[in-house]
Amino acid sequence: MTKPLILVSNDDGITSRGIYNLVQVMKEIGDVIVVAPDSPQSGMGHAITVGDTLRLDESFVFEGVKAYECSGTPADCVKMARHFVLLGKRQPDVVVSGINHGSNTSISVLYSGTMSAAIEGAIEDTPAIGFSLCDYSSEADFTHTLPYIKKITQQVLDKKLPAGVALNVNFPPKRNENIKGIRICRQANAKWVEEFDQRFDPNGRRYFWMTGNFANFDKGEDNDEWAIANNYVSIVPCQFDLTAHHAIPALNNDWDIFG
Amino acid sequence: MTKPLILVSNDDGITSRGIYNLVQVMKEIGDVIVVAPDSPQSGMGHAITVGDTLRLDESFVFEGVKAYECSGTPADCVKMARHFVLLGKRQPDVVVSGINHGSNTSISVLYSGTMSAAIEGAIEDTPAIGFSLCDYSSEADFTHTLPYIKKITQQVLDKKLPAGVALNVNFPPKRNENIKGIRICRQANAKWVEEFDQRFDPNGRRYFWMTGNFANFDKGEDNDEWAIANNYVSIVPCQFDLTAHHAIPALNNDWDIFG
Repeated sequence: MTKPLILVSNDDGITSRGIYNLVQVMKEIGDVIVVAPDSPQSGMGHAITVGDTLRLDESFVFEGVKAYECSGTPADCVKMARHFVLLGKRQPDVVVSGINHGSNTSISVLYSGTMSAAIEGAIEDTPAIGFSLCDYSSEADFTHTLPYIKKITQQVLDKKLPAGVALNVNFPPKRNENIKGIRICRQANAKWVEEFDQRFDPNGRRYFWMTGNFANFDKGEDNDEWAIANNYVSIVPCQFDLTAHHAIPALNNDWDIFG
Repeated sequence: MTKPLILVSNDDGITSRGIYNLVQVMKEIGDVIVVAPDSPQSGMGHAITVGDTLRLDESFVFEGVKAYECSGTPADCVKMARHFVLLGKRQPDVVVSGINHGSNTSISVLYSGTMSAAIEGAIEDTPAIGFSLCDYSSEADFTHTLPYIKKITQQVLDKKLPAGVALNVNFPPKRNENIKGIRICRQANAKWVEEFDQRFDPNGRRYFWMTGNFANFDKGEDNDEWAIANNYVSIVPCQFDLTAHHAIPALNNDWDIFG
Protein backbone atom coordinates (compact mmCIF):
# COMPACT_ATOMS: atom_id res chain seq x y z
CA MET A 1 0.00 0.00 0.00
CA THR A 2 1.29 3.47 -0.91
CA LYS A 3 2.01 5.64 2.09
CA PRO A 4 0.29 9.01 2.14
CA LEU A 5 2.28 12.06 1.01
CA ILE A 6 2.41 14.68 3.75
CA LEU A 7 3.38 18.30 3.12
CA VAL A 8 4.72 20.01 6.25
CA SER A 9 5.07 23.75 6.77
CA ASN A 10 4.95 26.22 9.66
CA ASP A 11 5.43 29.88 10.56
CA ASP A 12 8.16 29.70 13.20
CA GLY A 13 10.73 28.79 10.54
CA ILE A 14 12.34 25.56 9.38
CA THR A 15 14.80 25.31 12.30
CA SER A 16 12.17 25.64 15.07
CA ARG A 17 11.48 22.94 17.63
CA GLY A 18 7.81 22.73 16.70
CA ILE A 19 8.35 21.68 13.09
CA TYR A 20 11.09 19.27 14.16
CA ASN A 21 8.59 17.49 16.42
CA LEU A 22 5.89 17.56 13.75
CA VAL A 23 8.19 16.00 11.14
CA GLN A 24 9.14 13.18 13.52
CA VAL A 25 5.45 12.25 13.98
CA MET A 26 4.69 12.52 10.25
CA LYS A 27 7.57 10.18 9.37
CA GLU A 28 5.66 7.47 11.26
CA ILE A 29 2.57 8.04 9.09
CA GLY A 30 3.76 8.67 5.55
CA ASP A 31 6.20 10.11 3.05
CA VAL A 32 7.13 13.60 4.14
CA ILE A 33 8.12 16.72 2.25
CA VAL A 34 8.86 20.00 4.00
CA VAL A 35 8.61 23.51 2.55
CA ALA A 36 8.91 26.03 5.37
CA PRO A 37 10.03 29.64 5.89
CA ASP A 38 13.77 30.25 6.27
CA SER A 39 13.06 32.61 9.20
CA PRO A 40 10.25 33.21 11.72
CA GLN A 41 7.00 34.54 10.21
CA SER A 42 4.76 34.89 13.26
CA GLY A 43 1.80 37.24 12.88
CA MET A 44 2.00 37.09 9.08
CA GLY A 45 -1.68 36.19 8.77
CA HIS A 46 -2.55 35.25 5.23
CA ALA A 47 0.22 37.36 3.70
CA ILE A 48 1.73 36.43 0.33
CA THR A 49 4.75 37.88 -1.45
CA VAL A 50 3.70 40.18 -4.28
CA GLY A 51 5.99 42.83 -5.73
CA ASP A 52 9.07 41.06 -4.42
CA THR A 53 11.13 37.99 -5.29
CA LEU A 54 11.20 34.60 -3.57
CA ARG A 55 14.09 32.29 -2.81
CA LEU A 56 13.84 28.52 -2.41
CA ASP A 57 16.79 26.36 -1.34
CA GLU A 58 17.15 22.74 -0.37
CA SER A 59 17.58 22.21 3.37
CA PHE A 60 19.20 19.33 5.21
CA VAL A 61 17.90 19.91 8.73
CA PHE A 62 15.67 16.78 8.75
CA GLU A 63 17.37 13.42 8.48
CA GLY A 64 16.03 11.40 5.56
CA VAL A 65 13.40 13.99 4.63
CA LYS A 66 13.31 16.11 1.48
CA ALA A 67 13.05 19.70 2.69
CA TYR A 68 13.18 23.22 1.31
CA GLU A 69 13.50 26.59 2.97
CA CYS A 70 11.67 29.51 1.38
CA SER A 71 12.18 33.24 1.88
CA GLY A 72 8.43 33.85 1.81
CA THR A 73 5.45 33.52 4.10
CA PRO A 74 3.75 30.25 5.16
CA ALA A 75 1.11 30.77 2.41
CA ASP A 76 3.93 31.25 -0.13
CA CYS A 77 5.52 27.98 1.06
CA VAL A 78 2.39 25.93 0.38
CA LYS A 79 1.89 27.60 -3.01
CA MET A 80 5.53 26.90 -3.99
CA ALA A 81 5.34 23.34 -2.73
CA ARG A 82 2.36 22.59 -4.92
CA HIS A 83 3.07 24.63 -8.03
CA PHE A 84 6.85 24.34 -8.20
CA VAL A 85 8.37 21.61 -5.99
CA LEU A 86 5.61 19.05 -6.63
CA LEU A 87 4.45 20.39 -10.00
CA GLY A 88 3.51 17.51 -12.30
CA LYS A 89 4.26 15.03 -9.51
CA ARG A 90 2.12 13.45 -6.84
CA GLN A 91 0.21 16.04 -4.82
CA PRO A 92 -0.02 15.85 -1.01
CA ASP A 93 -2.75 13.83 0.72
CA VAL A 94 -2.64 16.17 3.69
CA VAL A 95 -1.03 19.51 4.58
CA VAL A 96 0.08 19.91 8.20
CA SER A 97 1.46 23.11 9.71
CA GLY A 98 3.18 23.78 13.04
CA ILE A 99 3.62 22.88 15.76
CA ASN A 100 3.25 26.59 16.46
CA HIS A 101 5.05 27.75 19.57
CA GLY A 102 2.14 29.72 21.04
CA SER A 103 -1.65 29.83 20.95
CA ASN A 104 -3.78 30.22 17.83
CA THR A 105 -7.14 30.06 19.57
CA SER A 106 -10.08 32.45 19.08
CA ILE A 107 -9.27 35.66 17.14
CA SER A 108 -5.56 34.71 16.84
CA VAL A 109 -6.51 32.43 13.94
CA LEU A 110 -6.77 35.60 11.80
CA TYR A 111 -3.17 36.61 12.48
CA SER A 112 -1.80 33.09 12.34
CA GLY A 113 0.78 32.15 9.74
CA THR A 114 0.43 28.54 10.91
CA MET A 115 -3.24 28.52 9.95
CA SER A 116 -2.65 30.39 6.69
CA ALA A 117 -0.53 27.44 5.50
CA ALA A 118 -3.37 25.07 6.44
CA ILE A 119 -6.00 27.25 4.74
CA GLU A 120 -3.89 27.28 1.55
CA GLY A 121 -4.25 23.48 1.69
CA ALA A 122 -8.04 23.77 1.98
CA ILE A 123 -8.19 26.24 -0.93
CA GLU A 124 -6.53 23.56 -3.06
CA ASP A 125 -8.98 20.86 -1.88
CA THR A 126 -6.39 19.09 0.26
CA PRO A 127 -7.27 18.13 3.85
CA ALA A 128 -5.20 20.41 6.07
CA ILE A 129 -4.44 20.91 9.76
CA GLY A 130 -2.66 23.61 11.75
CA PHE A 131 -1.26 22.54 15.14
CA SER A 132 -0.42 25.00 17.93
CA LEU A 133 0.76 24.63 21.51
CA CYS A 134 -0.69 27.21 23.92
CA ASP A 135 2.60 27.68 25.75
CA TYR A 136 4.91 30.63 25.05
CA SER A 137 7.67 29.45 27.42
CA SER A 138 11.04 28.99 25.74
CA GLU A 139 11.22 25.59 27.46
CA ALA A 140 7.73 24.55 26.33
CA ASP A 141 7.29 20.77 26.36
CA PHE A 142 5.76 19.45 23.11
CA THR A 143 5.75 15.72 24.05
CA HIS A 144 2.15 15.48 25.29
CA THR A 145 0.89 16.75 21.92
CA LEU A 146 2.57 14.12 19.74
CA PRO A 147 0.21 11.13 20.25
CA TYR A 148 -2.76 13.45 19.59
CA ILE A 149 -1.16 14.87 16.44
CA LYS A 150 -0.66 11.36 15.12
CA LYS A 151 -4.23 10.33 15.94
CA ILE A 152 -5.81 13.46 14.46
CA THR A 153 -3.73 13.33 11.26
CA GLN A 154 -4.57 9.66 10.74
CA GLN A 155 -8.25 10.40 11.30
CA VAL A 156 -8.14 13.17 8.69
CA LEU A 157 -6.38 10.87 6.21
CA ASP A 158 -9.00 8.15 6.83
CA LYS A 159 -12.15 10.28 6.85
CA LYS A 160 -11.06 13.38 4.85
CA LEU A 161 -12.64 16.76 5.67
CA PRO A 162 -15.66 18.64 4.34
CA ALA A 163 -14.74 20.70 1.22
CA GLY A 164 -13.15 24.07 1.99
CA VAL A 165 -12.41 23.22 5.64
CA ALA A 166 -9.07 23.21 7.48
CA LEU A 167 -8.66 22.28 11.14
CA ASN A 168 -7.26 24.68 13.73
CA VAL A 169 -5.93 22.38 16.48
CA ASN A 170 -4.66 23.86 19.76
CA PHE A 171 -3.11 22.00 22.67
CA PRO A 172 -3.10 23.04 26.32
CA PRO A 173 0.33 23.47 27.90
CA LYS A 174 1.71 20.34 29.57
CA ARG A 175 0.18 20.17 33.03
CA ASN A 176 0.37 17.68 35.89
CA GLU A 177 -2.87 15.98 34.90
CA ASN A 178 -3.27 14.29 31.52
CA ILE A 179 -5.19 15.92 28.66
CA LYS A 180 -8.90 15.12 29.13
CA GLY A 181 -9.70 14.50 25.46
CA ILE A 182 -10.55 16.23 22.19
CA ARG A 183 -13.33 18.77 21.64
CA ILE A 184 -14.71 20.04 18.31
CA CYS A 185 -15.20 23.76 18.99
CA ARG A 186 -16.20 27.08 17.53
CA GLN A 187 -13.81 30.06 17.55
CA ALA A 188 -14.25 31.87 20.90
CA ASN A 189 -15.49 35.45 21.02
CA ALA A 190 -12.34 37.05 22.39
CA LYS A 191 -9.86 39.65 21.22
CA TRP A 192 -6.63 41.44 21.95
CA VAL A 193 -6.68 44.92 23.47
CA GLU A 194 -3.47 46.44 22.21
CA GLU A 195 -1.08 48.73 24.02
CA PHE A 196 1.83 50.54 22.42
CA ASP A 197 5.01 50.77 24.47
CA GLN A 198 6.65 54.02 23.30
CA ARG A 199 10.47 54.24 23.40
CA PHE A 200 13.18 56.42 21.89
CA ASP A 201 16.05 55.20 19.75
CA PRO A 202 19.67 56.41 20.25
CA ASN A 203 18.91 59.28 17.84
CA GLY A 204 15.95 60.43 19.91
CA ARG A 205 13.34 59.27 17.41
CA ARG A 206 10.40 57.42 18.90
CA TYR A 207 9.37 53.87 18.10
CA PHE A 208 6.85 51.41 19.49
CA TRP A 209 6.45 47.81 20.59
CA MET A 210 2.94 46.41 20.23
CA THR A 211 1.86 44.60 23.38
CA GLY A 212 -1.60 43.91 24.70
CA ASN A 213 -3.99 41.98 26.86
CA PHE A 214 -6.28 39.18 25.87
CA ALA A 215 -9.96 39.81 26.63
CA ASN A 216 -12.32 36.80 26.55
CA PHE A 217 -16.01 37.72 26.38
CA ASP A 218 -17.24 34.20 25.66
CA LYS A 219 -19.24 32.46 28.39
CA GLY A 220 -19.92 29.32 26.33
CA GLU A 221 -18.38 25.88 26.82
CA ASP A 222 -18.34 24.97 23.12
CA ASN A 223 -15.42 27.24 22.16
CA ASP A 224 -11.67 26.78 21.90
CA GLU A 225 -10.74 29.02 24.85
CA TRP A 226 -12.93 26.98 27.18
CA ALA A 227 -11.45 23.72 25.87
CA ILE A 228 -7.83 24.82 26.43
CA ALA A 229 -8.60 26.26 29.88
CA ASN A 230 -10.17 22.91 30.81
CA ASN A 231 -7.26 20.81 29.51
CA TYR A 232 -8.87 19.55 26.30
CA VAL A 233 -7.41 19.59 22.80
CA SER A 234 -9.52 22.09 20.79
CA ILE A 235 -10.31 21.53 17.12
CA VAL A 236 -12.02 24.37 15.25
CA PRO A 237 -13.02 23.60 11.64
CA CYS A 238 -12.17 26.79 9.70
CA GLN A 239 -13.26 28.03 6.29
CA PHE A 240 -11.95 30.59 3.80
CA ASP A 241 -15.39 31.79 2.72
CA LEU A 242 -15.51 34.99 4.78
CA THR A 243 -19.06 35.86 3.61
CA ALA A 244 -21.34 36.72 6.54
CA HIS A 245 -24.22 34.94 4.80
CA HIS A 246 -26.68 35.90 7.55
CA ALA A 247 -26.06 39.59 6.78
CA ILE A 248 -27.06 39.40 3.11
CA PRO A 249 -30.87 39.44 3.60
CA ALA A 250 -30.53 42.12 6.30
CA LEU A 251 -28.66 44.45 3.92
CA ASN A 252 -30.99 43.68 1.02
CA ASN A 253 -34.04 44.46 3.14
CA ASP A 254 -32.84 47.48 5.13
CA TRP A 255 -30.83 49.47 2.64
CA ASP A 256 -32.38 51.86 0.18
CA ILE A 257 -29.55 52.62 -2.22
CA PHE A 258 -30.20 49.97 -4.85
CA GLY A 259 -32.44 52.12 -7.03
CA MET B 1 -24.99 68.23 14.89
CA THR B 2 -21.60 66.60 15.43
CA LYS B 3 -20.07 65.31 12.25
CA PRO B 4 -19.08 61.63 12.25
CA LEU B 5 -15.43 60.76 12.89
CA ILE B 6 -14.01 58.74 10.01
CA LEU B 7 -10.79 56.73 10.27
CA VAL B 8 -9.13 56.18 6.89
CA SER B 9 -6.47 53.59 6.10
CA ASN B 10 -5.36 51.51 3.12
CA ASP B 11 -2.72 49.05 1.95
CA ASP B 12 -1.23 50.85 -1.07
CA GLY B 13 0.44 53.40 1.22
CA ILE B 14 -0.37 56.93 2.31
CA THR B 15 0.81 58.58 -0.93
CA SER B 16 -1.29 56.44 -3.27
CA ARG B 17 -3.98 57.85 -5.53
CA GLY B 18 -6.67 55.60 -4.06
CA ILE B 19 -6.42 56.94 -0.51
CA TYR B 20 -6.19 60.50 -1.83
CA ASN B 21 -9.53 60.02 -3.58
CA LEU B 22 -11.07 58.33 -0.54
CA VAL B 23 -10.03 61.18 1.78
CA GLN B 24 -11.58 63.78 -0.55
CA VAL B 25 -14.94 61.97 -0.38
CA MET B 26 -14.77 61.49 3.38
CA LYS B 27 -14.09 65.20 3.96
CA GLU B 28 -17.58 65.83 2.54
CA ILE B 29 -19.14 63.48 5.12
CA GLY B 30 -17.31 64.00 8.40
CA ASP B 31 -14.17 64.70 10.41
CA VAL B 32 -11.33 62.66 8.97
CA ILE B 33 -8.24 61.13 10.52
CA VAL B 34 -5.78 59.07 8.47
CA VAL B 35 -3.40 56.38 9.74
CA ALA B 36 -1.93 54.54 6.77
CA PRO B 37 1.19 52.56 5.86
CA ASP B 38 4.28 54.58 4.88
CA SER B 39 4.88 52.18 1.96
CA PRO B 40 2.85 49.71 -0.15
CA GLN B 41 1.59 46.64 1.74
CA SER B 42 -0.28 44.72 -0.94
CA GLY B 43 -0.82 41.03 -0.25
CA MET B 44 -0.18 41.47 3.47
CA GLY B 45 -3.44 39.73 4.40
CA HIS B 46 -4.15 40.04 8.07
CA ALA B 47 -0.48 40.41 9.05
CA ILE B 48 0.51 42.31 12.19
CA THR B 49 3.95 43.34 13.40
CA VAL B 50 5.14 41.11 16.23
CA GLY B 51 8.79 40.74 17.16
CA ASP B 52 9.67 44.04 15.48
CA THR B 53 9.26 47.74 16.21
CA LEU B 54 6.79 50.19 14.70
CA ARG B 55 7.26 53.82 13.65
CA LEU B 56 4.49 56.42 13.53
CA ASP B 57 5.05 59.93 12.16
CA GLU B 58 2.74 62.79 11.36
CA SER B 59 2.14 63.25 7.64
CA PHE B 60 1.13 66.38 5.75
CA VAL B 61 0.02 64.85 2.45
CA PHE B 62 -3.68 65.71 2.95
CA GLU B 63 -4.64 69.37 3.13
CA GLY B 64 -6.52 70.14 6.33
CA VAL B 65 -6.58 66.52 7.52
CA LYS B 66 -4.73 65.07 10.52
CA ALA B 67 -2.73 62.16 9.15
CA TYR B 68 -0.07 59.70 10.29
CA GLU B 69 2.14 57.31 8.39
CA CYS B 70 3.00 54.01 10.06
CA SER B 71 5.77 51.55 9.26
CA GLY B 72 3.44 48.58 9.89
CA THR B 73 0.70 46.72 8.09
CA PRO B 74 -2.87 47.95 7.51
CA ALA B 75 -4.03 45.99 10.57
CA ASP B 76 -1.26 47.65 12.63
CA CYS B 77 -2.46 51.06 11.41
CA VAL B 78 -6.01 50.55 12.68
CA LYS B 79 -4.74 49.18 16.01
CA MET B 80 -2.39 52.16 16.46
CA ALA B 81 -5.10 54.62 15.46
CA ARG B 82 -7.44 53.31 18.10
CA HIS B 83 -5.09 52.46 20.95
CA PHE B 84 -2.51 55.20 20.55
CA VAL B 85 -3.54 58.11 18.31
CA LEU B 86 -7.17 58.22 19.51
CA LEU B 87 -6.61 56.65 22.93
CA GLY B 88 -8.86 58.30 25.51
CA LYS B 89 -10.38 60.49 22.80
CA ARG B 90 -13.42 60.08 20.58
CA GLN B 91 -13.38 56.76 18.72
CA PRO B 92 -14.26 56.53 15.01
CA ASP B 93 -17.87 56.12 13.84
CA VAL B 94 -16.69 54.27 10.76
CA VAL B 95 -13.42 52.81 9.44
CA VAL B 96 -12.88 53.04 5.68
CA SER B 97 -9.98 51.50 3.79
CA GLY B 98 -8.78 51.96 0.20
CA ILE B 99 -9.48 52.75 -2.50
CA ASN B 100 -7.38 49.71 -3.35
CA HIS B 101 -5.78 49.88 -6.77
CA GLY B 102 -6.81 46.38 -7.89
CA SER B 103 -9.48 43.78 -7.24
CA ASN B 104 -10.30 42.25 -3.85
CA THR B 105 -13.14 40.02 -5.05
CA SER B 106 -13.60 36.32 -4.25
CA ILE B 107 -10.57 34.58 -2.67
CA SER B 108 -8.46 37.76 -2.88
CA VAL B 109 -10.24 39.00 0.26
CA LEU B 110 -8.00 36.60 2.24
CA TYR B 111 -4.78 38.21 0.95
CA SER B 112 -6.11 41.75 1.09
CA GLY B 113 -4.46 44.31 3.33
CA THR B 114 -7.30 46.69 2.44
CA MET B 115 -9.85 44.32 3.94
CA SER B 116 -7.67 43.51 6.96
CA ALA B 117 -7.91 47.18 7.98
CA ALA B 118 -11.71 47.00 7.64
CA ILE B 119 -11.92 43.74 9.57
CA GLU B 120 -9.87 45.30 12.39
CA GLY B 121 -12.67 47.87 12.55
CA ALA B 122 -15.29 45.13 12.81
CA ILE B 123 -13.32 43.35 15.56
CA GLU B 124 -13.57 46.57 17.56
CA ASP B 125 -17.34 46.88 16.93
CA THR B 126 -16.94 49.80 14.53
CA PRO B 127 -18.77 49.71 11.20
CA ALA B 128 -16.08 49.27 8.55
CA ILE B 129 -15.76 49.20 4.76
CA GLY B 130 -12.97 48.26 2.37
CA PHE B 131 -13.17 49.80 -1.12
CA SER B 132 -11.35 48.37 -4.15
CA LEU B 133 -11.28 49.22 -7.84
CA CYS B 134 -10.98 46.19 -10.14
CA ASP B 135 -8.55 47.92 -12.48
CA TYR B 136 -4.78 47.31 -12.32
CA SER B 137 -3.93 49.90 -15.00
CA SER B 138 -1.51 52.59 -13.82
CA GLU B 139 -3.90 55.13 -15.35
CA ALA B 140 -6.97 53.65 -13.66
CA ASP B 141 -9.82 56.16 -13.40
CA PHE B 142 -11.34 56.32 -9.88
CA THR B 143 -13.94 59.02 -10.60
CA HIS B 144 -16.93 56.73 -11.25
CA THR B 145 -16.49 55.13 -7.80
CA LEU B 146 -16.69 58.34 -5.75
CA PRO B 147 -20.47 58.96 -5.73
CA TYR B 148 -21.00 55.30 -4.75
CA ILE B 149 -18.40 55.49 -1.98
CA LYS B 150 -20.18 58.50 -0.55
CA LYS B 151 -23.61 56.85 -0.76
CA ILE B 152 -22.44 53.54 0.78
CA THR B 153 -20.52 55.21 3.62
CA GLN B 154 -23.50 57.41 4.49
CA GLN B 155 -25.78 54.38 4.45
CA VAL B 156 -23.45 52.53 6.83
CA LEU B 157 -23.33 55.57 9.14
CA ASP B 158 -27.15 55.80 9.08
CA LYS B 159 -28.03 52.11 9.42
CA LYS B 160 -24.86 50.67 11.05
CA LEU B 161 -23.88 47.05 10.28
CA PRO B 162 -24.63 43.71 11.94
CA ALA B 163 -22.11 42.97 14.74
CA GLY B 164 -18.83 41.48 13.54
CA VAL B 165 -19.41 42.40 9.90
CA ALA B 166 -17.26 44.54 7.58
CA LEU B 167 -18.12 45.28 3.96
CA ASN B 168 -15.91 44.28 1.04
CA VAL B 169 -16.89 46.72 -1.73
CA ASN B 170 -15.48 46.28 -5.24
CA PHE B 171 -16.03 48.54 -8.24
CA PRO B 172 -15.88 47.55 -11.91
CA PRO B 173 -13.33 49.43 -14.01
CA LYS B 174 -14.67 52.58 -15.70
CA ARG B 175 -16.44 51.49 -18.86
CA ASN B 176 -18.37 53.32 -21.57
CA GLU B 177 -21.74 52.47 -20.01
CA ASN B 178 -22.64 53.65 -16.50
CA ILE B 179 -22.53 51.32 -13.49
CA LYS B 180 -25.84 49.41 -13.35
CA GLY B 181 -26.28 49.56 -9.57
CA ILE B 182 -25.23 47.88 -6.30
CA ARG B 183 -25.48 44.16 -5.49
CA ILE B 184 -25.14 42.50 -2.08
CA CYS B 185 -23.12 39.37 -2.88
CA ARG B 186 -21.42 36.32 -1.50
CA GLN B 187 -17.68 35.69 -2.05
CA ALA B 188 -17.31 33.87 -5.38
CA ASN B 189 -15.86 30.37 -5.52
CA ALA B 190 -12.70 31.19 -7.45
CA LYS B 191 -8.97 30.99 -6.84
CA TRP B 192 -5.54 31.77 -8.18
CA VAL B 193 -3.49 29.07 -9.86
CA GLU B 194 0.07 30.15 -9.20
CA GLU B 195 3.05 29.92 -11.45
CA PHE B 196 6.63 30.60 -10.43
CA ASP B 197 8.79 32.40 -12.95
CA GLN B 198 12.33 31.16 -12.25
CA ARG B 199 15.25 33.53 -12.94
CA PHE B 200 18.90 33.81 -12.02
CA ASP B 201 20.52 36.75 -10.26
CA PRO B 202 23.89 38.24 -11.39
CA ASN B 203 25.61 35.74 -9.05
CA GLY B 204 23.93 32.78 -10.72
CA ARG B 205 21.61 32.06 -7.79
CA ARG B 206 18.00 31.38 -8.69
CA TYR B 207 15.01 33.38 -7.53
CA PHE B 208 11.31 33.46 -8.37
CA TRP B 209 8.47 35.79 -9.18
CA MET B 210 5.03 34.54 -8.21
CA THR B 211 2.55 34.97 -11.04
CA GLY B 212 -0.63 33.09 -11.80
CA ASN B 213 -3.99 32.84 -13.44
CA PHE B 214 -7.39 33.45 -11.94
CA ALA B 215 -9.77 30.49 -12.17
CA ASN B 216 -13.48 31.15 -11.56
CA PHE B 217 -15.54 28.01 -10.87
CA ASP B 218 -18.66 29.85 -9.77
CA LYS B 219 -21.70 29.66 -12.06
CA GLY B 220 -23.98 31.66 -9.75
CA GLU B 221 -25.22 35.21 -10.26
CA ASP B 222 -25.23 36.13 -6.57
CA ASN B 223 -21.44 36.45 -6.19
CA ASP B 224 -18.97 39.32 -6.47
CA GLU B 225 -17.25 38.10 -9.65
CA TRP B 226 -20.57 38.02 -11.49
CA ALA B 227 -21.45 41.51 -10.24
CA ILE B 228 -18.17 43.06 -11.40
CA ALA B 229 -18.28 41.28 -14.78
CA ASN B 230 -21.82 42.66 -15.26
CA ASN B 231 -20.89 46.24 -14.32
CA TYR B 232 -22.43 46.29 -10.82
CA VAL B 233 -20.79 47.44 -7.57
CA SER B 234 -20.36 44.30 -5.43
CA ILE B 235 -20.75 44.40 -1.64
CA VAL B 236 -19.83 41.26 0.29
CA PRO B 237 -20.53 41.37 4.04
CA CYS B 238 -17.48 39.68 5.64
CA GLN B 239 -16.92 38.22 9.10
CA PHE B 240 -13.90 37.33 11.21
CA ASP B 241 -15.45 34.21 12.73
CA LEU B 242 -13.73 31.63 10.52
CA THR B 243 -15.57 28.70 12.15
CA ALA B 244 -17.08 26.36 9.57
CA HIS B 245 -20.13 25.87 11.82
CA HIS B 246 -21.69 23.35 9.43
CA ALA B 247 -18.67 21.07 9.87
CA ILE B 248 -18.98 20.76 13.66
CA PRO B 249 -21.79 18.15 13.75
CA ALA B 250 -20.15 16.25 10.87
CA LEU B 251 -16.89 15.89 12.80
CA ASN B 252 -18.67 15.08 16.06
CA ASN B 253 -20.70 12.34 14.37
CA ASP B 254 -18.10 10.78 12.06
CA TRP B 255 -14.94 10.80 14.11
CA ASP B 256 -14.08 8.13 16.63
CA ILE B 257 -11.14 9.59 18.52
CA PHE B 258 -12.99 11.27 21.37
CA GLY B 259 -12.83 8.28 23.71
